[in-house]
Amino acid sequence: MLHSRLFVKSKKELPEDEVSKNAILLHKASFVYKEMSGVYTFLPMGLRVLNKIENLLRKHMDLVGTEIYLSSLAPKELWQQTGRINEVDVLFKVSAANENSKNKSNNEYILNSTHEELVTPIAAHFAQSYKDFPVDHPLAFYQIQTKFRNEPRAKSGLLRGREFRMKDLYSFHLTKDDFEKYYESVKQSYINFFTDLQLGQDLYITSASGGDFTEQVSHEFQIMCDAGEDTIYIDEASKNAFNKELVSTENEIKFGVKFDALEQVTACEVGNIFTLEDKFTKAFNLQYTNRDNKKELVPHMGCYGIGTTRIMGVMVEKFSDDSGMVWPKVVAPFDVEIVSLFKELGDDVYVESKSIYEKLKASYDCLLDDREISVGQKLNDADLYGIPVQIIVGAKNLERGVVEVKVRKSGRILEVQLNEVESLLKTLWPEVF
Amino acid sequence: MLHSRLFVKSKKELPEDEVSKNAILLHKASFVYKEMSGVYTFLPMGLRVLNKIENLLRKHMDLVGTEIYLSSLAPKELWQQTGRINEVDVLFKVSAANENSKNKSNNEYILNSTHEELVTPIAAHFAQSYKDFPVDHPLAFYQIQTKFRNEPRAKSGLLRGREFRMKDLYSFHLTKDDFEKYYESVKQSYINFFTDLQLGQDLYITSASGGDFTEQVSHEFQIMCDAGEDTIYIDEASKNAFNKELVSTENEIKFGVKFDALEQVTACEVGNIFTLEDKFTKAFNLQYTNRDNKKELVPHMGCYGIGTTRIMGVMVEKFSDDSGMVWPKVVAPFDVEIVSLFKELGDDVYVESKSIYEKLKASYDCLLDDREISVGQKLNDADLYGIPVQIIVGAKNLERGVVEVKVRKSGRILEVQLNEVESLLKTLWPEVF
Repeated sequence: MLHSRLFVKSKKELPEDEVSKNAILLHKASFVYKEMSGVYTFLPMGLRVLNKIENLLRKHMDLVGTEIYLSSLAPKELWQQTGRINEVDVLFKVSAANENSKNKSNNEYILNSTHEELVTPIAAHFAQSYKDFPVDHPLAFYQIQTKFRNEPRAKSGLLRGREFRMKDLYSFHLTKDDFEKYYESVKQSYINFFTDLQLGQDLYITSASGGDFTEQVSHEFQIMCDAGEDTIYIDEASKNAFNKELVSTENEIKFGVKFDALEQVTACEVGNIFTLEDKFTKAFNLQYTNRDNKKELVPHMGCYGIGTTRIMGVMVEKFSDDSGMVWPKVVAPFDVEIVSLFKELGDDVYVESKSIYEKLKASYDCLLDDREISVGQKLNDADLYGIPVQIIVGAKNLERGVVEVKVRKSGRILEVQLNEVESLLKTLWPEVF
Repeated sequence: MLHSRLFVKSKKELPEDEVSKNAILLHKASFVYKEMSGVYTFLPMGLRVLNKIENLLRKHMDLVGTEIYLSSLAPKELWQQTGRINEVDVLFKVSAANENSKNKSNNEYILNSTHEELVTPIAAHFAQSYKDFPVDHPLAFYQIQTKFRNEPRAKSGLLRGREFRMKDLYSFHLTKDDFEKYYESVKQSYINFFTDLQLGQDLYITSASGGDFTEQVSHEFQIMCDAGEDTIYIDEASKNAFNKELVSTENEIKFGVKFDALEQVTACEVGNIFTLEDKFTKAFNLQYTNRDNKKELVPHMGCYGIGTTRIMGVMVEKFSDDSGMVWPKVVAPFDVEIVSLFKELGDDVYVESKSIYEKLKASYDCLLDDREISVGQKLNDADLYGIPVQIIVGAKNLERGVVEVKVRKSGRILEVQLNEVESLLKTLWPEVF
């Protein structure tokens, strides 16, 4: 991609009330544009990061479930059937905006903040017999979608939004044992995903309350992060962790821990997994015919979330330095940026940069900075964007047949012959994570 | 993909009020699930088709614009600034659903039905100088996204929805000439896209009214289709077409046509392109500094839409027969379905089917019907799904070392040796479009 085709430029001034590191860096680099508190537009490079996070997640989720795309609008009746229309504080409804409208429809719909009310009737539509609940690959649907929540305190950039993107997965099981096996397999796939994102070492799988309707604990996937909203108690040795809400004498006995002996850290919840028991299967009468040809209620449903835009925010919080963001290759907007320090379009430096770009783009996602701006601004922008490898093409070096290759993470700069750029890149990836 | 992992099955009964061919076939095949009038969930195979349509479109749009992802929620102020909050009949607003909520926020937001109000301020944020409006690759942003419209008569399956998916593209230009050149290039990219979809021969680029604020005509991309809502006047020889709304003596002179001499056909609008002149650049004061260092208003903005879910509906209307859907390979949920007529899991037929599946899936999107259901139902479902090529594996044929390969479109069945399946497939694609 040519930088001139992105149509965006880095910005010095900040929107009002923007204080969190991820919001500031993503705004300055023009990865996102703030529409209002908790609502962001994704600009070209931000969208590329988001797509890479979601496609990586999709790869892991395809191993445990089947992708669908549930509607965002729901009839009110579905939310009345579970009673949650009066329980979920953050729920939005939609209605006609235009009071003068010729369209006399006074219909109101729910804008789903979560999708149990939609996915359970679909399970009931297709699963009627015990044969529809195979044990070796349980009935499980997932989706990756924009979600809406009427957050009273939308803040911290991408960490808490009124509009955000999320993966949600729902599973249905006939026995507790089946559910628990599946639950563990999803837990493992989450660990694999966060490890791929290079977030593994700061990940704590945290026991937390399972909610009002169950005695079971749920598990939160928490990334240690100063900008987070949660306090968790961690045991570094065992990697066991507990949400602050669990701290009680009763739970010290239940879990066999002394909370006072654990370290308290601030963390951001990027995923969660929990049982819904039969709350929704009961509400929507999800029954199946068992081996004795008798009807029974499906007793176990699980729910598994991951916030993809929030992960993007957390990664900026974790992977940045004084000069800007530092993306791991797996989700970087581009693998390589060619920082072309030409004097004018068409000069030798420009031509050589273009030639490197054309050669590399078959194997790598490449950005070529082809803008007619100052050398300083190009170098500053490159550090701000945080693309893992920069190839800096300047006139003086070019006379000697070399370019500089800068590893954004370590700051290491290597001087390399023009014909050795490609072979160097192959050796570099382990270093740039 | 194994059919058992789709977790859906074909259905005989229909939802209430479903009369259009696309809604009936997509429901029967469980490609979609109707949540309410005009609102559908996309089930695994439907989502695969939708993704293929959108990814093909993305390939064409990347040649004329840069992809972003605008927020769905907007502050009311943006829609007040253009006055459209009181003009757009189908506009939705969102507000707290739960009247007992502890969350006292009485905020209301707009749920965008179109995105001029969001994209124009973004253009203003980044483009200040004439240099920011390059002539050879104009400033143009596009997105592919779910849109919401408070349709009074949501009907005809995917052809008219309250919630639907759409590609919208917006461009900004400093001269009429630049705008017109770009407009033609988008027109051509639309033609290329619809041609790739195999819809080229039924496509009519139809002159229509440009809307209230301009004397210019707009262009609609209409596919001749009985389920459509539009009547267009076509000249088959020149492929010129006119929306019925243009029929007047005045326009006969303007366009040099006799409307009476043209054929009237029913069509469905799948795309449109039109000028917005300076309506939005004025509302949001999108100014630039010209070569004389003076500030001027950006005078030309264009808008270009394509409905991706509607295209899916139109393709079912166009490409089906008495047995079901007939997908062209380019957007089919799978390239090949292996219809395995085994008696029980693990028998010879099953093992051979699985082996064909494993071999083919490296090169093709393959579906293996591994369900324990009757032979008749498997064959019927395969015709209903409309995957371009069926490989039918049955016990009797297998004894002779052959399988049947059925081309869904023509119904042609070829008997082929097991070791010749792969080479046959390569020769088949031209026939299955």
